[in-house]
Amino acid sequence: MGANSGDALSHNAEEAAALPLNPLPAGMRDLLPPKARRQSRVGARIMRTFELFGYGRVWLPIFEYAQLLERTNSGVGSSLRFVEPDSGEIVALRSDMTPQIARVVSTRFRNTPLPARLCYQGSVLRRRRERARTEGQVVQAGIELVGMSGIEADLEVIFALCAAVRGAGLQHFVLDIGHAGVAGSLLAAVPEQARAGLTEALAAKDATVIERRGRAAGLRGKSLDALVALADLHGGGEQLQRAAAALSDTPAETCGRELQALFERVQRAECADKVVVDYGETSRFDYYTGAMFSVLARGPGEPLASGGRYDNVYARFGLPRPAAGCAIDLNNVCWALEEEGWIEPRYPTIVVEADASRALLTRLRSSEVACAVTREDPQSYADAWGFGFTLRSVTEPSSGLCVRARSGAQLDVPAGDVDEQARQIASFVKQHRDHD
Amino acid sequence: MGANSGDALSHNAEEAAALPLNPLPAGMRDLLPPKARRQSRVGARIMRTFELFGYGRVWLPIFEYAQLLERTNSGVGSSLRFVEPDSGEIVALRSDMTPQIARVVSTRFRNTPLPARLCYQGSVLRRRRERARTEGQVVQAGIELVGMSGIEADLEVIFALCAAVRGAGLQHFVLDIGHAGVAGSLLAAVPEQARAGLTEALAAKDATVIERRGRAAGLRGKSLDALVALADLHGGGEQLQRAAAALSDTPAETCGRELQALFERVQRAECADKVVVDYGETSRFDYYTGAMFSVLARGPGEPLASGGRYDNVYARFGLPRPAAGCAIDLNNVCWALEEEGWIEPRYPTIVVEADASRALLTRLRSSEVACAVTREDPQSYADAWGFGFTLRSVTEPSSGLCVRARSGAQLDVPAGDVDEQARQIASFVKQHRDHD
Repeated sequence: MGANSGDALSHNAEEAAALPLNPLPAGMRDLLPPKARRQSRVGARIMRTFELFGYGRVWLPIFEYAQLLERTNSGVGSSLRFVEPDSGEIVALRSDMTPQIARVVSTRFRNTPLPARLCYQGSVLRRRRERARTEGQVVQAGIELVGMSGIEADLEVIFALCAAVRGAGLQHFVLDIGHAGVAGSLLAAVPEQARAGLTEALAAKDATVIERRGRAAGLRGKSLDALVALADLHGGGEQLQRAAAALSDTPAETCGRELQALFERVQRAECADKVVVDYGETSRFDYYTGAMFSVLARGPGEPLASGGRYDNVYARFGLPRPAAGCAIDLNNVCWALEEEGWIEPRYPTIVVEADASRALLTRLRSSEVACAVTREDPQSYADAWGFGFTLRSVTEPSSGLCVRARSGAQLDVPAGDVDEQARQIASFVKQHRDHD
Repeated sequence: MGANSGDALSHNAEEAAALPLNPLPAGMRDLLPPKARRQSRVGARIMRTFELFGYGRVWLPIFEYAQLLERTNSGVGSSLRFVEPDSGEIVALRSDMTPQIARVVSTRFRNTPLPARLCYQGSVLRRRRERARTEGQVVQAGIELVGMSGIEADLEVIFALCAAVRGAGLQHFVLDIGHAGVAGSLLAAVPEQARAGLTEALAAKDATVIERRGRAAGLRGKSLDALVALADLHGGGEQLQRAAAALSDTPAETCGRELQALFERVQRAECADKVVVDYGETSRFDYYTGAMFSVLARGPGEPLASGGRYDNVYARFGLPRPAAGCAIDLNNVCWALEEEGWIEPRYPTIVVEADASRALLTRLRSSEVACAVTREDPQSYADAWGFGFTLRSVTEPSSGLCVRARSGAQLDVPAGDVDEQARQIASFVKQHRDHD
């Protein structure tokens, strides 16, 4: 579930440009240290939060039968299909996790009391139609809450999402809330062929075009006025009264009230530092059936996370149940963390001259101090690979060890008991520890 | 790098058989809680150990140009190729990580002082020729040490591997060591077309067939005797003298001495509870150029991990450098841990009746107590989804909360300050904490 990625790929553009030749398929990229470490830690923190909300971790294969992955309308056309060469069967790399979770819940947990609460972390492949010949691999962490509906269920997903983003280290983010039924119920009265044009106008928040196309599609009176009003019904709590007035006595009244209730509860909970509401939100509203939300922050230029309610999905897997979920794009969270100047705590790392004893290395590693040995100059190796400290043997004025931090701080360790040496070194490097 | 998997897939055979229909491509499978959680924790512990050895984490895309992945002879024919539909290019899902690491080192770290120390965790796809129409997805964690040769480099990889397996929680495992050059240098004198048959006989440790085929291939005297002797040169330290005698004055003498030295150093270091040597080890010795090793333990029926030296790989990426590495199969490690009766420590998990306050839930989660809310009977939900505790509101004899452990232990929490309630509950559940 979820709909992130996009410009995130250009994040490493400087790095890619520095290469003489980047022999990777378009849209694919590497993460090197320290970025790969940071992303894996951010992912671990997010998954930990999901577990604290009672979500059980699943791990799912990277490809499946294309037919299965494409049972949701989010899957159709967006998964990367290929023929499995041994069997000749058509399989696909997943573009989101929801179909796989639906398969698991509708088979393995078919007879288990609902709600099912499952969380996952994994890669998905996004085909981008806008830019031909480009996919993007996105690492997501997300949750699915299956078999529970109503505001309490929506709130649970939103709270877990916000707690996960906050737990990852991000301080400032905006939660944007919409409801698929608001525009949806107004458009239900419109002939099928007119909906795409109206949805486009709603997405552009262009009141003039909405009015013209709505009228052409046969809308009149309150319904037409309500649809036109959607273009402007976005912002903070000041929108609630305006929306209530604009939507009253229209097919959108109930969904509008649901959105208002959700907004009020979310705002009261202070789970994000800003909550905004968008009554005219229509992105992927063919997929969602109720609440829709996304998390925004400075940096990536697209949501860090998105989610909502999709009550029609499970019926396609033979188990008609309400469901909601969200997915967080780990790369975008890392990007937003960088923008905030987040400092990733890091275990100290030492480059050690080759003649150090294995006993010393073992003791340092047991004290959570990372050590790598070099036969060359320890300082050049430390600089090149980002180690925070060097350790050399010294013979003048007396024999022992010398530890030096990048900052210039230095510790002289007399020769003697290796346990005592390790203790001194570990204590020194933890005091002068570095970050990525 | 590495060569694990195989029967590991049957691990979940009971589970698969219980399904009315398993709509997964052959060889693909799911991991459900608590297995998925256990595997992710085992992976995190292994990666942590690799980082403590100074290895920097990289994250690599799941598919690349097939040509690149197949530049090593381990890649040819084993990667799962397909046509990328947008570009028409031939790409493949990786069967091991070494080619990708080689691409990264030979481009992004081309001008960085060696050795490069990189670690990774990720999925690889294994095509199995033995059983047609079957792939297996294997989750690996591994390291690559590039630009360093000699016994110290081999030892570093072996020590990191054994420390990682031990750090994952496994107490008993066997390290099996061989050397590609022992049989390799004896077979170098044999015509190309005779080698496959001889390798097969060596793998079967069939002295009679080795002698017959060796003689037919033109081997005579000490070289033939040495090759025949390999069938029997496996076991503990008692093999060293026998091997030295059998290999002396043959082309295998130097490699035999290298293997002996490695064995002695590894045994002295006590990094595994048993070390065995196999002078006749020939599996994948077309790929390896020096030390080869694997980790064995009760359970999976195949190695948990394997690795070695492959000094010819990097030249194919335009950067001729010695290299060694290893890869650990996380599923097999989990399997071996289960065999040992390993108990995975687990945070306490509570199912909470729906009327509990959000403030209480938030405080419990901040104390690392996982909470899920249910509107139904908390005990049935807890039993079905493996939660360790339930929390209900009580009104008799006085109003408050009641926490109950699976074991039957019970805590009554009086009504009152929510901080104090959370403190009492967290303390109780941590005392009575459960495991998977």
